[in-house]
Amino acid sequence: MNGAESMLQTLINNGVEVCFANPGTSEMHMVAAMGKSDQIRSVLCLFEGVCSGAADGYGRMTGKPACTLLHLGPGLSNASANLHNAKKAYSPVINLVGDHATYHKKFDAPLTSDIISLAKPVSNWLEVAGSAAELPSAAAGAVYAANISPGQVSTLVVPADSAWDTSTRPVKKQPLPAATLVKDQAVTAAAQLLKNGKPSIMLLGNSALSERALELADQIVQATGVKLLSDTFIPRQARGEGRCKIERLGYFSEQAEAQIDGIKQWVMVGTKAPVAFFAYPEKASALYPEGSTLHTLAQVHDNTEDALQRLVTELAADSFEPRKIIKCLPEPGTGDLDMVSLANSFAHYLPNNAIVVDEGATAGALCGPLSETAERHDWLGLTGGSIGYGLPAAIGAAVACPDRKVICLHGDGGAMYTIQSLWTMAREQLDICVIILANRKYQILQIELSRVGAEAVSEKTLEMMDLGNPDLDFVQIAEGMGVKASRAENSEQFNQMYADALKESGPSLIEAVMP
Amino acid sequence: MNGAESMLQTLINNGVEVCFANPGTSEMHMVAAMGKSDQIRSVLCLFEGVCSGAADGYGRMTGKPACTLLHLGPGLSNASANLHNAKKAYSPVINLVGDHATYHKKFDAPLTSDIISLAKPVSNWLEVAGSAAELPSAAAGAVYAANISPGQVSTLVVPADSAWDTSTRPVKKQPLPAATLVKDQAVTAAAQLLKNGKPSIMLLGNSALSERALELADQIVQATGVKLLSDTFIPRQARGEGRCKIERLGYFSEQAEAQIDGIKQWVMVGTKAPVAFFAYPEKASALYPEGSTLHTLAQVHDNTEDALQRLVTELAADSFEPRKIIKCLPEPGTGDLDMVSLANSFAHYLPNNAIVVDEGATAGALCGPLSETAERHDWLGLTGGSIGYGLPAAIGAAVACPDRKVICLHGDGGAMYTIQSLWTMAREQLDICVIILANRKYQILQIELSRVGAEAVSEKTLEMMDLGNPDLDFVQIAEGMGVKASRAENSEQFNQMYADALKESGPSLIEAVMP
Repeated sequence: MNGAESMLQTLINNGVEVCFANPGTSEMHMVAAMGKSDQIRSVLCLFEGVCSGAADGYGRMTGKPACTLLHLGPGLSNASANLHNAKKAYSPVINLVGDHATYHKKFDAPLTSDIISLAKPVSNWLEVAGSAAELPSAAAGAVYAANISPGQVSTLVVPADSAWDTSTRPVKKQPLPAATLVKDQAVTAAAQLLKNGKPSIMLLGNSALSERALELADQIVQATGVKLLSDTFIPRQARGEGRCKIERLGYFSEQAEAQIDGIKQWVMVGTKAPVAFFAYPEKASALYPEGSTLHTLAQVHDNTEDALQRLVTELAADSFEPRKIIKCLPEPGTGDLDMVSLANSFAHYLPNNAIVVDEGATAGALCGPLSETAERHDWLGLTGGSIGYGLPAAIGAAVACPDRKVICLHGDGGAMYTIQSLWTMAREQLDICVIILANRKYQILQIELSRVGAEAVSEKTLEMMDLGNPDLDFVQIAEGMGVKASRAENSEQFNQMYADALKESGPSLIEAVMP
Repeated sequence: MNGAESMLQTLINNGVEVCFANPGTSEMHMVAAMGKSDQIRSVLCLFEGVCSGAADGYGRMTGKPACTLLHLGPGLSNASANLHNAKKAYSPVINLVGDHATYHKKFDAPLTSDIISLAKPVSNWLEVAGSAAELPSAAAGAVYAANISPGQVSTLVVPADSAWDTSTRPVKKQPLPAATLVKDQAVTAAAQLLKNGKPSIMLLGNSALSERALELADQIVQATGVKLLSDTFIPRQARGEGRCKIERLGYFSEQAEAQIDGIKQWVMVGTKAPVAFFAYPEKASALYPEGSTLHTLAQVHDNTEDALQRLVTELAADSFEPRKIIKCLPEPGTGDLDMVSLANSFAHYLPNNAIVVDEGATAGALCGPLSETAERHDWLGLTGGSIGYGLPAAIGAAVACPDRKVICLHGDGGAMYTIQSLWTMAREQLDICVIILANRKYQILQIELSRVGAEAVSEKTLEMMDLGNPDLDFVQIAEGMGVKASRAENSEQFNQMYADALKESGPSLIEAVMP
């Protein structure tokens, strides 16, 4: 058994079932090992940013890591923007990065680069398997680290000779790490704050946005009157009918300031105290006023459901029945397509148990709020701010949950970052409906331009944020990659196309032309 | 004048004329500064890998740096694969990477990452402008470093407050660094080796592949009988009618071994001693046999033309007239499209003074050899092994040389990496003819699979290298981005489409369906 085979069997023994791959020559033994195994599914992607975004989406929906297969430093670089997002989402991901044979590195061949320096910023765990003998245990270490709750990014660098040399036996199934339990003191301190009568916010993020965690949080709200908010950008949230409500912290500081006006105390669950996404001249970075009391009930890696359950008990809030959302669908939009009509249509037709992958950006900003009382669904958001995560994450979600419909809301600018995703959707016949919100500009930049105080708005400046001239034709682009597509110029067309897409299985794309 | 404005004026004062941009919020002041200036052209790209590849192509054709405008760590990551290629090509490039305001970094907002660690492997020069006052001199440093011959990659990190705060005056035009002259000893030692009668190779790379350098090399060949070879992968080579011939070192070790059989001595000019692109089990990494005599006449950063001229003088080779290529066009291909017929057609119709950007990979492997005696042209190759450089580099070459036709030969697999390039070609109406060699597989991997000794070739393994199912329709994809396109299924169709494309100005794409 060579190193690649023993590594792969170690990954399989420890629960890895899928590899999102874009291999090269230095990965050939790993490719051959996967080709011989029927215990791992390999999904070919045409660009490494698709691999990493897909692994992120898969990790969010299964709670377990897929692996990526990447080609030396450049392959890792191409994957890195979506690894950044995955790391900020605390998704479990294992990167297998092929490298030159150990003895070949010193010759500085064209593909040689400093993989370690490239990998560090996007990895929670990073190791080079220096020999075939070390490779299985290194792989076991990568799986373990990726499974540290809620998830981490592991990067295992595999020199070609570590893959092709004779190796040791694969590592058997190992125990996985359990999420840490918070100390009693964290629970009692939270209870004391919430009972002292001062205006407070409980801020939930990451694993604290599960169906059960939100029920517990709602019991605490009923018992204490605390205001409940979620992070602005969330890896995954249980939403819709039968779930408990939570308001989202606004993206723009002005929105956030209104939401937190008069608040003296913050209790964080599974997240950190809130900060502005960007700095603006003369504006504070922290969103909590100076002098606020900040208390963390549970950190990101803690068991948030357990912490919330114990806080419920401490507050004697068990007697409150969680208030669950009763389904109430907005009427579908009519007439011109705009933010409101599109969001109403989106919410009206949203199928039961859908997975929504949201990179709708400005044009899609109302899709979240207006679908709060729609059918039950899971919502995946852009966590790291690096656009181009949505299409790949939809692939991962669809591979993870083949029986659920995936709706991918995507801005046109961001969609072009990883547009190659469409081909993988077609190849794997994934059940994804992509909705491109085609406003033909980087609208957020036009908004931000004035907000950062860059007052001079010349035509040349605006052209640098304009996606027209020529307009992108997403219907042709999608069909060119094998995905059925159509363009909606008004709500009636959109409603028909959307309803049709939901009736069928397999990938489809609707380009919604927006103002 | 704020930091962004003073930085920009510094760049302009020192010869920067073009910015390939994909900005975000943290770059708004730089965008506004560019919008106010009529001394810099800004070219919007839909993905950062297009920006960096375009800057590479521009640098190779002008010998001076363009800048890229990138959005924090993820924007830099997206640019990095083509920065890797640019660095290996010794292209002059200046990256302007926006970052969070200095005081905002500690809050670890979603887009925060370790930009330094990401930037180091792809940068020869790297600096953070810690304040608006430091920004102009930092920009001057970036230009200087980028201009170190033949070129370097400079990365300037610009925190948002350094851009928006009030700054000092721009730096005026500074003297640029001159290429170093080699020592006399290097010349006399080379002359002695070439006169000692032992079988020798003179290996040329990088700046030693200019029209003039090749003429000098040919005089040396005539005087000494030395065998002349170029690097396998070259940033730019003067080729075709009126230029001097040079054979290229083969990609596969077997090819290279035949070329260098019996050689005892190597003289390097503008490059390093040759090494294998990848390691293979049981094969040596160095392509020169153990015990070879290695002598470097000129290193990459030296003035190679001057060194060759002095060697010509030392050898008294001035009397030899450089033997220039006499134009001899192959007949255009007929019948089925294959490697041979396509290369013949490519060479037959190649227009005078064309720029060929080559990422033709396996299917295009004969386009180089068969166009050796075609019309005069410049040839740009893939230097760092990271696919997806060709389409972006064609943009840069076309922006650099608006009066010359750019022909971009591209494998289908690599083209999908940075397919967004097509939109920028359409937007800027660049005079580029893209030829996609659509063999619908990662053919190099199918070749390499057996070469690396990964013997098990299952159907599942081959699927991981197969771009069919579904076939990519590059005609639709190109038209979806505004580029006129057509598909050739045989040579007659290809010849007609190619000839038509060459008659007209502006971007076009031909998908050549290959076996």
